Amino acid sequence: MAQRIKGVLAPVITPFRKDLTADTERFVRHCKWLLGHGCAGLAVFGTNSEANSLSVDERMALLEALVESGVPAARLMPGTGCSALPDSVALTAHAVKLGCAGVLMLPPFYYKGVPEEGLYRNFSEVVQRVADDRLQLYLYHIPPMSQVPITLALIERLLKAWPKSIAGIKDSSGDWSNTQAVLDAFGKSGFDVFAGSEVFLLRTMRAGGVGCITAGANVNPHGIGAIYEAWTASGADDLQAAADAVRGALQAVPMIPALKAVVAHYAGDADWETLRPPLVELAAGEKQGLLCALEKLHFDMPGV
Amino acid sequence: MAQRIKGVLAPVITPFRKDLTADTERFVRHCKWLLGHGCAGLAVFGTNSEANSLSVDERMALLEALVESGVPAARLMPGTGCSALPDSVALTAHAVKLGCAGVLMLPPFYYKGVPEEGLYRNFSEVVQRVADDRLQLYLYHIPPMSQVPITLALIERLLKAWPKSIAGIKDSSGDWSNTQAVLDAFGKSGFDVFAGSEVFLLRTMRAGGVGCITAGANVNPHGIGAIYEAWTASGADDLQAAADAVRGALQAVPMIPALKAVVAHYAGDADWETLRPPLVELAAGEKQGLLCALEKLHFDMPGV
Repeated sequence: MAQRIKGVLAPVITPFRKDLTADTERFVRHCKWLLGHGCAGLAVFGTNSEANSLSVDERMALLEALVESGVPAARLMPGTGCSALPDSVALTAHAVKLGCAGVLMLPPFYYKGVPEEGLYRNFSEVVQRVADDRLQLYLYHIPPMSQVPITLALIERLLKAWPKSIAGIKDSSGDWSNTQAVLDAFGKSGFDVFAGSEVFLLRTMRAGGVGCITAGANVNPHGIGAIYEAWTASGADDLQAAADAVRGALQAVPMIPALKAVVAHYAGDADWETLRPPLVELAAGEKQGLLCALEKLHFDMPGV
Repeated sequence: MAQRIKGVLAPVITPFRKDLTADTERFVRHCKWLLGHGCAGLAVFGTNSEANSLSVDERMALLEALVESGVPAARLMPGTGCSALPDSVALTAHAVKLGCAGVLMLPPFYYKGVPEEGLYRNFSEVVQRVADDRLQLYLYHIPPMSQVPITLALIERLLKAWPKSIAGIKDSSGDWSNTQAVLDAFGKSGFDVFAGSEVFLLRTMRAGGVGCITAGANVNPHGIGAIYEAWTASGADDLQAAADAVRGALQAVPMIPALKAVVAHYAGDADWETLRPPLVELAAGEKQGLLCALEKLHFDMPGV
């Protein structure tokens, strides 16, 4: 098996034109900027990518364009978990066929209160139907959005059934005690734990994790990448504090429009602010506050 | 404009084969049975249809097969609301082109806590992109599952912007006070309110509503249809009580597997029990309890 992907991954924001179509050219450009400024990889089609506002065909076309543009598939971990099993299978098989480092899979998220057995079957069906030894499946635990948790018991069952395919988790619970519990239970057995926010990056690394997949990496890949590079060094806590300050400014307003407003500002390209419904752009006052707060932190996005 | 659809509609359960593929033949047969036993229409691809476990292509193929089998499109109100706007537009345009009576639209349900403006834009984009005067759009309010409510303020904005297209609502909140508030605010102005459960059917009719779209209609269309037919007659409350008793038995266990277990039992076809992940079939004890409770109520599904 190839070396697994580790480090800081960005759930890349998806640029839209005014007519709400996806803008492939700007997407590729932002992806390349991220890889050149501290990101080890790209978790395209995550929550912050508005992935669940994209059709299956749109996701496949964007992923193919990215690989064709020269971005190595070995640095890609696309989101492939949908409500409908056939969609999850199709996207996962497509990503594996392109040679992606892994896939980040949401549980099916429409039905609530479903039994663990049903989630086990969902992931197991994907593994069996994709039927490719290259599949590296990362579970995506984000109960604030999916409302369907990935429990420790579910991870244990899946790891036992599919030890070669179940590769790790992104924990976006926002609950450090859950990340700690996952690390304690599975971190030493080759199950790779990514923090779901940069604010947990240093703690995650010190507890045996492998990196983070975080919204903030869309705008602050250099700041977050620096923590990962230096996590064993003496200055790591200072780097963490600096990244936390940027995250604090972002978190004061809705995250996805915030990321797009920041990129729009620093890239000098207002089209970046476009979101697909049901999301909406920041209010003028929110945008002003965010940009002012970042300026006070001497934040920049060189070359974006 | 043609007469709008009213009465009892079933969110038809979707039959799967053991390999989890949709079984068109059994689907068509169950649809025809429902229309012959008390249902005025079919809200195919609802929550109880496991619609969010079906791909866009699967939904289109099933709908086309249904119309080709001779089921009048004027009796169909397919669910067309997805997380991704392009999917909602594609399914809605397809349903309108086939001549369906209406569409039942979930709000985009992945992102939580979204602003009313974002939901307004979502439905408005669908109306504008479908761009067909025949579109009759019914809003689907089911916060226990979608976690994204359709508020009175949103209905008011949409009705004002698209008075010819916004036709009504299915209220599956389970909260009578909400249904009453919607009826009070919009019921007299040609906005058609369907109860989301048969337990509210009589109250809905007496308060100015037009029917119900309910899980229970999959197995008890005759019992529920009888309430609708006789709602102004003296025996209506007795009919409501009888239907409530059947609903009570169903609700004691998870609803979707319950509906499938009941149809499997009365049709003598165990394949009906198959569900797609993340849903799972009833446990043996649950099934025994449900079937026994229905027998005590002298429940039957003649000719299914």
